Order: sequence, then C-alpha cells, then structure tokens
Amino acid sequence: MASNVKKWSAEFLGTFWLTFGGCGSAVLAAAFPEVGIGLLGVSLAFGLTVLTGAYAFGPVSGGHFNPAVSVGLMVAGRFKASELPGYIIAQVLGAIVAAGVLYVIATGKAGANVTDLATNGFGEHSPGKFNMLAALVTEVVLTAVFLLVILGSTTKKAAAGFAGMSIGLCLTLIHLISIPVTNTSVNPARSTGPALFGPAIAVEQLWLFWLAPIVGAIIGALIHKALLGDEE
Amino acid sequence: MASNVKKWSAEFLGTFWLTFGGCGSAVLAAAFPEVGIGLLGVSLAFGLTVLTGAYAFGPVSGGHFNPAVSVGLMVAGRFKASELPGYIIAQVLGAIVAAGVLYVIATGKAGANVTDLATNGFGEHSPGKFNMLAALVTEVVLTAVFLLVILGSTTKKAAAGFAGMSIGLCLTLIHLISIPVTNTSVNPARSTGPALFGPAIAVEQLWLFWLAPIVGAIIGALIHKALLGDEE
Amino acid sequence: MASNVKKWSAEFLGTFWLTFGGCGSAVLAAAFPEVGIGLLGVSLAFGLTVLTGAYAFGPVSGGHFNPAVSVGLMVAGRFKASELPGYIIAQVLGAIVAAGVLYVIATGKAGANVTDLATNGFGEHSPGKFNMLAALVTEVVLTAVFLLVILGSTTKKAAAGFAGMSIGLCLTLIHLISIPVTNTSVNPARSTGPALFGPAIAVEQLWLFWLAPIVGAIIGALIHKALLGDEE
Amino acid sequence: MASNVKKWSAEFLGTFWLTFGGCGSAVLAAAFPEVGIGLLGVSLAFGLTVLTGAYAFGPVSGGHFNPAVSVGLMVAGRFKASELPGYIIAQVLGAIVAAGVLYVIATGKAGANVTDLATNGFGEHSPGKFNMLAALVTEVVLTAVFLLVILGSTTKKAAAGFAGMSIGLCLTLIHLISIPVTNTSVNPARSTGPALFGPAIAVEQLWLFWLAPIVGAIIGALIHKALLGDEE
Repeated sequence: MASNVKKWSAEFLGTFWLTFGGCGSAVLAAAFPEVGIGLLGVSLAFGLTVLTGAYAFGPVSGGHFNPAVSVGLMVAGRFKASELPGYIIAQVLGAIVAAGVLYVIATGKAGANVTDLATNGFGEHSPGKFNMLAALVTEVVLTAVFLLVILGSTTKKAAAGFAGMSIGLCLTLIHLISIPVTNTSVNPARSTGPALFGPAIAVEQLWLFWLAPIVGAIIGALIHKALLGDEE
Repeated sequence: MASNVKKWSAEFLGTFWLTFGGCGSAVLAAAFPEVGIGLLGVSLAFGLTVLTGAYAFGPVSGGHFNPAVSVGLMVAGRFKASELPGYIIAQVLGAIVAAGVLYVIATGKAGANVTDLATNGFGEHSPGKFNMLAALVTEVVLTAVFLLVILGSTTKKAAAGFAGMSIGLCLTLIHLISIPVTNTSVNPARSTGPALFGPAIAVEQLWLFWLAPIVGAIIGALIHKALLGDEE
Repeated sequence: MASNVKKWSAEFLGTFWLTFGGCGSAVLAAAFPEVGIGLLGVSLAFGLTVLTGAYAFGPVSGGHFNPAVSVGLMVAGRFKASELPGYIIAQVLGAIVAAGVLYVIATGKAGANVTDLATNGFGEHSPGKFNMLAALVTEVVLTAVFLLVILGSTTKKAAAGFAGMSIGLCLTLIHLISIPVTNTSVNPARSTGPALFGPAIAVEQLWLFWLAPIVGAIIGALIHKALLGDEE
Repeated sequence: MASNVKKWSAEFLGTFWLTFGGCGSAVLAAAFPEVGIGLLGVSLAFGLTVLTGAYAFGPVSGGHFNPAVSVGLMVAGRFKASELPGYIIAQVLGAIVAAGVLYVIATGKAGANVTDLATNGFGEHSPGKFNMLAALVTEVVLTAVFLLVILGSTTKKAAAGFAGMSIGLCLTLIHLISIPVTNTSVNPARSTGPALFGPAIAVEQLWLFWLAPIVGAIIGALIHKALLGDEE
C-alpha cells in the first residue's frame, strides 16, 4: 500500500474510532437507567479513543484524528501544508462513517427514536443552553490548550511513550469541563459526522465547530512556538 | 514446571482474573444502593483486569486471556497455530472457574437469588434490548479495533511497558460503549464461563459471542498487517 | 537518620496515607448528597494512595504499606524475615494514627455522629451482608492476585516506573469488586486502624482480616515462584 | 523571549489551566441534571489539569502552578528563593484570569445566577459545614503529602516521564478526600482567583488557604529531606 494511502487510512480509522467511541458511549450508555455512565463516562470514553488510537494508528499517520490538530501542527512547523487536504478529507469521512455505523446500532431496538447522535451546538441546541459567546470562548480556549499539550508532549526531549496518555487524558479533561456548554467539539470532524444524521440545527451551527477549534489550535501553536520553539 | 504448563497456567489465571474481576464488579457492586459503581465502574474493572494481568502473567504467556485475541495474534503472524488449542482450553477453563467462585460469593448472603452472572446477550437478553444485527455489528467492530490496539501497542518499535495500559484501557473504552448492547463480550471465554451458570438463553446465544469476536479479531489483524506489516 | 528508622518512617507514612486517603474518601465523600463519589470514587482513592505513595516512599522502604504484602514478599524471597516485625509495627501504627486524624476531621462539624471509619466486616457487619465464607474466599483470592501483580510488576525484567501504576490500579480494581462484601481489606493494617475507633464488632472480626490476606499473600507468592521463579 | 518571561508565562498559563479546568468542571458540569460528573469528575479534572499542564508547560518552568509547591521546592533546595516572587505573582494572575474567563462562560445563559466559582471555605462556607480546625488539619496534611509525592516523583533516580502522572493523580486523590471539607485548596492561587469573583466570605477566609497549604508544603519538604535527602 502506498505511504499516502496508509496515512489516510490511519486517519480515517482513528477518527472513526474517536467519533464512534465517544459519541457511541454518549448515545448508548450515558443515560442508561440507574447505572448509566453519565458525562464522566463519556469524557473518559472520548479521551480513551485518542489514547488507544495513538498506539494503534499513531505510528502510521502521527495520530491527528482532528482537522484542528492537523492545522495546529502545520502552524507549529510539524506537518506539511501539502498533506493537509488529504488528512482532513480522511478525518471527515471517518467521522461520517462512524456516525452511520452508530446509527445502525442505535436504531437496532424496538421503539428506538434516534434523533441526535451527540451533535454539538449552542444556544437552544447547547445541552445547558449556553449562548454563542460562551460556546466560542469555550471552544477556542480548550482547543488552544489541547494543542499546547499535544505539542509539549511530542517534543523531541519528551519521554517516549507518554504522549498518547497525556493527549488522551487532556481530551477527557476538556469534556469534563465543556459537555454542558457545547457537548464539546474541539474537533470539526467529530462535529460533522453526527450532524449529518442529526437535526437541521446541528448542520446550521456547524460553522462554529469548524471556526473556533481551528482558531484555538492556531493560537495554541503560536504560544507553543513562543515558549518552546527554541528547544526543538 | 514445563514451559507449556506455565503458559497454560498463566492464561488460565489471567482469564480467571478477567472474568472474576469484571463480572464480579458487575454482579456485586454495579447496582449497590445509592453508591453503586454503575456501568462506568464495571468498565473500569474489566480494563484493569487486563492492565494488571498483563504485568502479572504477560511475561509467561503473552497475556492473551481471550480466544479471539489468540486467533488475531495468529493471523497477524505473532502466535503459532499449534499453540492455539492449549491456550483456548486454558482460557475457557479459567473463565468457568471464575464464574464458579463468583457464584459461591454472590450466593453467600441471606435471600440471595443469583440468576445471572453478567452473561452476554442480544434481543430480549440484551441489557438495552438491542437486536441481533446491532449486537453483531457492535461485537465485530469493537473486537477489530481491540486487535488493532493490541497489535499496535506491541510492535517492536513501541515504547516498552505501555502495552498493558493501552490495551487494558481499550477494554474499558469498549465496555463504556457497549454494555447496553450486549453486556460486552469481545471475548468468547468471558462469555462462556458465566453462561454455564446462567439462564438457558445465555447458552443459546453463546454462538454469537464466539463468532463475532473471532471475525472481528481476524479483520483487525488483517488491517494491522496492511497498515503496519512492513515495519515489524 | 539510620537506614532502619528511615524505612520504618516510610512504611509508617505510606500506610498512614493509604488508610487516611482511602478511608477518608469513604467517610467524608462517598455519600455526599447528590454529587458523592460513591464506591467508584473510594476504589480510585485507595488505588491512588498506593500509586502516589510508591513514588513518595517506595525508594526508601520498597513501599509495602501492608503486612500481607511484606509477608508475601518474604515468601517470594524478596524481603528478609528479620525486617518483618519492624515493618509490620510501623504499618499498623501508621494506620492507627491515620484513623485518629480522620476521626478529628470527621467529627469537626455540628451534629457529627461518627461511629464507623470504614471498618471491614462480614455477616451483619458486611456492607452487603455477605457471610463469613464469602468474606474469606473474597479476601484470600483478591490478596493472592494482588501479590501476583506486585511480584510480576517488580521483576528485574519489568519496564521501570510502571510498578506504582499497575499495583495501585490493582488495588482500585480489588475495591471495585469487593467493597460490598467486606468493605475490602486485603491489608491487615488498614483494617486495624479504623477498627480501634469503630464499633465493637469491627474488633471482634479483625482476626479474619489478618488471617485471609496473609494466607492469600502466601498463595500468590507461591504461584508467582512456580510461574516466574526461574526468571529472577 | 527572555528566559524569565517564558517561565512566568508558563506558570501563568499552567495555573490558568488548573483553575479554569478544575473550577470550570465544578461550576459547569458537577451538578448537571441526571448525568452530572459529581465530585469524582471534579477530582479527576483537577488532577488532569496538572498531568496535562506538566507536559505542556513543565519543560519551561518546572510546572509548579501553585505557590505552596514553589515554597516547598525552595525549602527542599530545588528552587531559588529569588525566583519565588515572580512565580507566585504569575500563578495568582493566572488563577484570576481563569476565574474571569470562567465567569464569562458561566453567565452566558438565560437566567444564570453565578454567585460562587468553586471557592474554598470552612465553617458555614464549607461544602459539608466542617469547622476551622478540620479545615486546617485537612489542608496541612494533604499539602504535606502532596509535596512528598512531588519531591519523590522528581528525584534524579526516578524513572523519567512518570512525574506528571503521579503528581496529577495525587491531586485527584486529594480532591476525592477533601472537597466536602474545604472544597479542596492545597493551592493558594487556585483559592484566590475564584474568591475575587465570589461571596465576601470567600475573601475573608482566604488567609487559611494561604497559611495551611504553605505550612503543609514546608512540612512535606522537610520530611522528604530527612528521608531521601542523601540520595539526591
């Protein structure tokens, strides 16, 4: 298999896993009667998709699984601009297929009425009814720190093997803070897949979940370069 | 002790621990009044049986504790076909003994009425009443990714010592997603032990929890070979 | 400070931390209204006392914090019998002081009525009313596996640095399974400290929480030697 | 950028993250209806801010994010007294800005009535109504052990890469024990930021959350030197 195809396949599979695992735990298990995993369980699930995906697919593609991460790595000088389109297409396709497979499972029971596969939103579509400003601030700040953790965990001086853990657990932390605000994106691909199977408002609001994570990622990358750029 | 007997003993003990710890937490602690650990606690318990078992028994047998994993490792060229029968027999025996010990504990209280030691199922025997197709898709997809994580975490280039963590936490993630669908198997031995002490329907449906995990494991192993086969 | 005094101090402090942190989370936070941490939080707390204590005190004393662990390490040939009495006395004293400090905090509120600092028990004193046989089997089996994980994680071939994590998370797993049965001991010192501040029945039943963990530890050590003895 | 400015920036950002992430999870997600993350989720969030911040900012400033930690490291001979004022000012500013950003988000919904951004307190301002003595003992003991874990995890002999994990998870453990008592500080900066946006009583009680953590940190540093000072 050509090297490019391998990379795209790895990004497709990793973003599939992130979206299927994270949104799947939210749709199938979060509110299970009496013993549901709640937002804590969903937060852990999202983080573990990245932790595990990093070990499974990271050696092939670097393990971005997120267009905002790819952009941030490019700004930090760690990723070629020419590779960006292929990565982003693979990521979005992976998220769409994940939402489709999740739809098949979620509707596989009598009386199933699946109208929302854990889409992101603000205003009336925010889980806690937070407005657009709150959503923008939240997504920008959290994606900026996410990139700082990703870039800090993967410098040449960093101890080998820990990056998957710190990056995955950072995504868990991000969800622990912000599911009530936007259902947590920080990842345009993860937002896009479920939105295509969801209510119209999820598609209408999708622009924010492309804009804010990418802006945040660029800010994070620039701060990283200012603080640690000399050491790489 | 002969090398083979040591390996079989390690697989017996590790699968005992996986089934006893995972199903034990489900039966004894998941729904404890007010402060029960819920599906999140059970998911963590299953994962930690593998994380800890990998350190305790991994150096002896490789730490499969799961017939689907042994088959997947064989397909990926990491495990000899001639060793498969011994491993699988040891794994199934470990799971059966685990279910037996758990039965002794669970019935050790006045008024205990233990009819199900966390068996797997679909349709009317699924915790969330998901149908056979949903169960099949779920078990195949999750076991395929499980193998991708296992194989990716144990390549020669992978940082030493992290495999137990990433593989164990992958099993936690798998449970966070799918307990409502099938009570989560991805492991034919874990399904078989409790089924022998459970309701008739658990035995009748056991075929799916041999078939789907093994098919998924083969798919995962083949994808891994396509993506990372050259690097080993 | 003499080497022996340092070791005893480290065991005193580590067992203080285990008992104060584990039982403290149970007494203060498990059943806090609406947002209490439950048995899952207590399980995590016990495990993290060992994970963190291993990094803080392990380099001084080896980080046993548990008389059953000291006995098991002795049986496995990793610890001198002559050091056993000093270690066990330090461990029990640490647990008693922890229970005392916890008592001061727990009674520091109006209307506090603290009658039980998370003592262990069986029969009518078991959280889930499990009988003596269930308690014995549970404590023996879990301590045996605990020693297998401890000994496997600390062989010379094991990757450095992971032992604190695997051993700590094993204690978390043990609690996820067995709090409903005995409130989980696997550690005679942890059982003794709170019992001295608790109801009379906790002291009457203390024999089981010395006997069962020590028997389990010896069994675990012997199995480890049979499986991995040649490799050390 | 001058080396000093980089260090102060890293401490500012790391303490921002600790306060924004920890207090943010408490304010936004802890008591979310039905599926809230509870005190367990908040405990995990606080710990993960340090675990992830250590990888993002640790290489620049050492990753203190806490005036008590800076003082303890100074007492242990690991940090220059002349650097203390700059670090503490940066930490306090980071926590204040975090509380401000959190205020913007938390008030970004119709009917929001945000009067307390997870401030610390005792007596009538303690979550569980614990008195001043209980608060003092709790904060001193927990900060002392926190420093022992920090100093033990970062000796030259310690395995590289694990310090972020053990220190972060220690902060999780500290919160699992003590949120009901003081809402958990062990960090004067984290206490100061939210207090400035909170009720008057939070500012009146702020002295305890500067005094107790710093006394505890000094005690922890002295114990560490007595036990492990020779080995550094």
